[in-house]
Amino acid sequence: MDFEAFFRSELDALKAEGRYRVFADLERRAGRFPRAAFHGPNGAREVTVWCSNDYLGMGQHPAVLAAMREALDACGAGAGGTRNIAGTNHYHVLLERELADLHGKEAALLFNSGYMSNWASLSTLAARIPGCVVLTDAANHASMIEGIRHSRAEKLIFAHNDAQDLRRKLQAIDPARPKLIAFESVYSMDGDIAPVAEFCDLAEEFGALTYIDEVHAVGLYGARGGGVSERDGLTHRLDLIEGTLAKSFGVMGGYVTGSAALCDFIRSFASGFIFSSSLPPALAAGALAAIRHLKTSSAEREGQQDRVRKLRGQLDRAGIPHLSNPSHIVPVMVGDAALCKRISDELLERFAIYVQPINYPTVARGTERLRITPTPLHSDEDIATLVGALSEIWSATGLQRAA
Amino acid sequence: MDFEAFFRSELDALKAEGRYRVFADLERRAGRFPRAAFHGPNGAREVTVWCSNDYLGMGQHPAVLAAMREALDACGAGAGGTRNIAGTNHYHVLLERELADLHGKEAALLFNSGYMSNWASLSTLAARIPGCVVLTDAANHASMIEGIRHSRAEKLIFAHNDAQDLRRKLQAIDPARPKLIAFESVYSMDGDIAPVAEFCDLAEEFGALTYIDEVHAVGLYGARGGGVSERDGLTHRLDLIEGTLAKSFGVMGGYVTGSAALCDFIRSFASGFIFSSSLPPALAAGALAAIRHLKTSSAEREGQQDRVRKLRGQLDRAGIPHLSNPSHIVPVMVGDAALCKRISDELLERFAIYVQPINYPTVARGTERLRITPTPLHSDEDIATLVGALSEIWSATGLQRAA
Repeated sequence: MDFEAFFRSELDALKAEGRYRVFADLERRAGRFPRAAFHGPNGAREVTVWCSNDYLGMGQHPAVLAAMREALDACGAGAGGTRNIAGTNHYHVLLERELADLHGKEAALLFNSGYMSNWASLSTLAARIPGCVVLTDAANHASMIEGIRHSRAEKLIFAHNDAQDLRRKLQAIDPARPKLIAFESVYSMDGDIAPVAEFCDLAEEFGALTYIDEVHAVGLYGARGGGVSERDGLTHRLDLIEGTLAKSFGVMGGYVTGSAALCDFIRSFASGFIFSSSLPPALAAGALAAIRHLKTSSAEREGQQDRVRKLRGQLDRAGIPHLSNPSHIVPVMVGDAALCKRISDELLERFAIYVQPINYPTVARGTERLRITPTPLHSDEDIATLVGALSEIWSATGLQRAA
Repeated sequence: MDFEAFFRSELDALKAEGRYRVFADLERRAGRFPRAAFHGPNGAREVTVWCSNDYLGMGQHPAVLAAMREALDACGAGAGGTRNIAGTNHYHVLLERELADLHGKEAALLFNSGYMSNWASLSTLAARIPGCVVLTDAANHASMIEGIRHSRAEKLIFAHNDAQDLRRKLQAIDPARPKLIAFESVYSMDGDIAPVAEFCDLAEEFGALTYIDEVHAVGLYGARGGGVSERDGLTHRLDLIEGTLAKSFGVMGGYVTGSAALCDFIRSFASGFIFSSSLPPALAAGALAAIRHLKTSSAEREGQQDRVRKLRGQLDRAGIPHLSNPSHIVPVMVGDAALCKRISDELLERFAIYVQPINYPTVARGTERLRITPTPLHSDEDIATLVGALSEIWSATGLQRAA
């Protein structure tokens, strides 16, 4: 077999479909966020980033950077091993305590990414609980899907955010079998929010374990940033809350929280946890500072919500179609991969605005979009510039306006 | 089902077997490595770490720390997104170029861990190359095993480091089917090294793709730290070289290098790559500095080799049994999980020496061991103290001495 030719032909197919990914080479600028230097073919120039998951700009927060510098100076660069072999640092211990407290749980467990926390935890639980059946929301993230798939446990997919369908699926399972319900709170691409309380009711009725992914909610919802589960007073009804340190907390890493036995079980059996070198102390220190800050400060959350409202209002006035949802995510719908890429290119080249086009497999074909994420650091002028640019492109391209 | 009771009973079984893992809560001290503060029940005290995978002490190297501080000040904490969505930082681009150069390849691709680089790359290649058969060394790392398993491709396990068995397995496969041979160079727990040249001969004879994991070799072998493949002049005969930034480069992260089309293929199709937030700029900057330093400086490699020789000589004189191998890893064999843990506890409590016990599933049952990793920063006195302590414990415990 000619492997090279095979790889190239598969890449050519992506290009023909208009969904070959070109990464924007950026240089974030601490203190200037949402500004970044974009390294293009003609050198670097400043752009405004409108699609970052550093939702609150905590990646440049002075308390976060100070904590990271301090840990770097004190402990050095890496952790030096896996958690079990020389790689548990005191900052990991402190951070796990802080995360457990954030979610009102007995314990927490750190991973190197949110992807890994989902993949490793779901695959371990579903594979090791004897006879486990997983009930999984149809729109769950790739990391959850792959974790469930890896477990080879029986799986039932329920219609997205549909408690009635979940009930039907639960009723169809032998009551004696252990059941695990896996879902997200805020869905990244549509920005819709799960009926968490209804899912908890069903879990209690049918004796199922509940697994919630709050990566797009931690730091952003709830009085202390504990996510939708905190906002809705449901923390104690969820067995496992999964989150990330890479979005609103501005750093990197993933985690799960739950009972001491649950976390210890995953800690003791999850291959992806056991065999990974652990997070550098400086990252744990930075995340710790971000979480502590957002536990007591609501200014960032309020600022973000204000910017989201303002952007939506201006998009509405300009007739730029965007998905209505109850979260901070503003999806501007395009519906075609090549066109989506072209609009993104134009925003970058003509208006120094960076919004990555979102194509399949991140979203379904035909629902290609620009996913816009306002932060408290986007100014009124930034919003006006973005909406003006979109409006101009909408006119020039003859795209449909919203009613 | 009572989930809590189930988790607890599984944990109790681990405890009964003596292989329940207790993490040592450490505080690495930059500038004092291999010393660290150990946080025990009675507060913190200084210990000497003898089991870190920060093999060369690059985690505290001034050039690495300076690069990380600079990137932290310039770019902030996290990368702000996945590589495709706002999370490609200029440091990633520079680091991928540096890694490609290190291994004499066209391209490289970064991951958040070595585990993820193996899991995501092997699962993507084996699943997407039509009809692919994977030939995998019996001793391959968990991340490779899980990646191959996740692909659901047909798999043949060949006897560890056994070229004759690999030939037999290759001969048994339909010549028309695409074949992928996956192996490591240095095996972490026994410290033995694969017959890489023989494997390359077979791959060429049978038209197979070669995948080598060099995580325990990069930085340590070869004139520029390009691993066993560089040392043996085999770089150009290996299709994919996988490595880590978390061991001899002292930071965190994993990577693969290979042809432009191969890396682009993994970049475009690997779920674990696409859907993970990317490495913080400061980590990429630190790894870049470590790699550049070790490309031109051999002092660290020579220092490590000298310490390894010295330790082995003294263990021999004291009659402490250790596995003979051609690498930098010194496994002191114990052969019992509970005893291994007890020796480790005694080293820590009585001698302020930290060596984690290595039990199943990291090694096979009956081969439990202390895995000792000398670094250039361990002094003559450190070595004398370690060997003296082991000797005392060996006498007190009545353990068998080597001939």
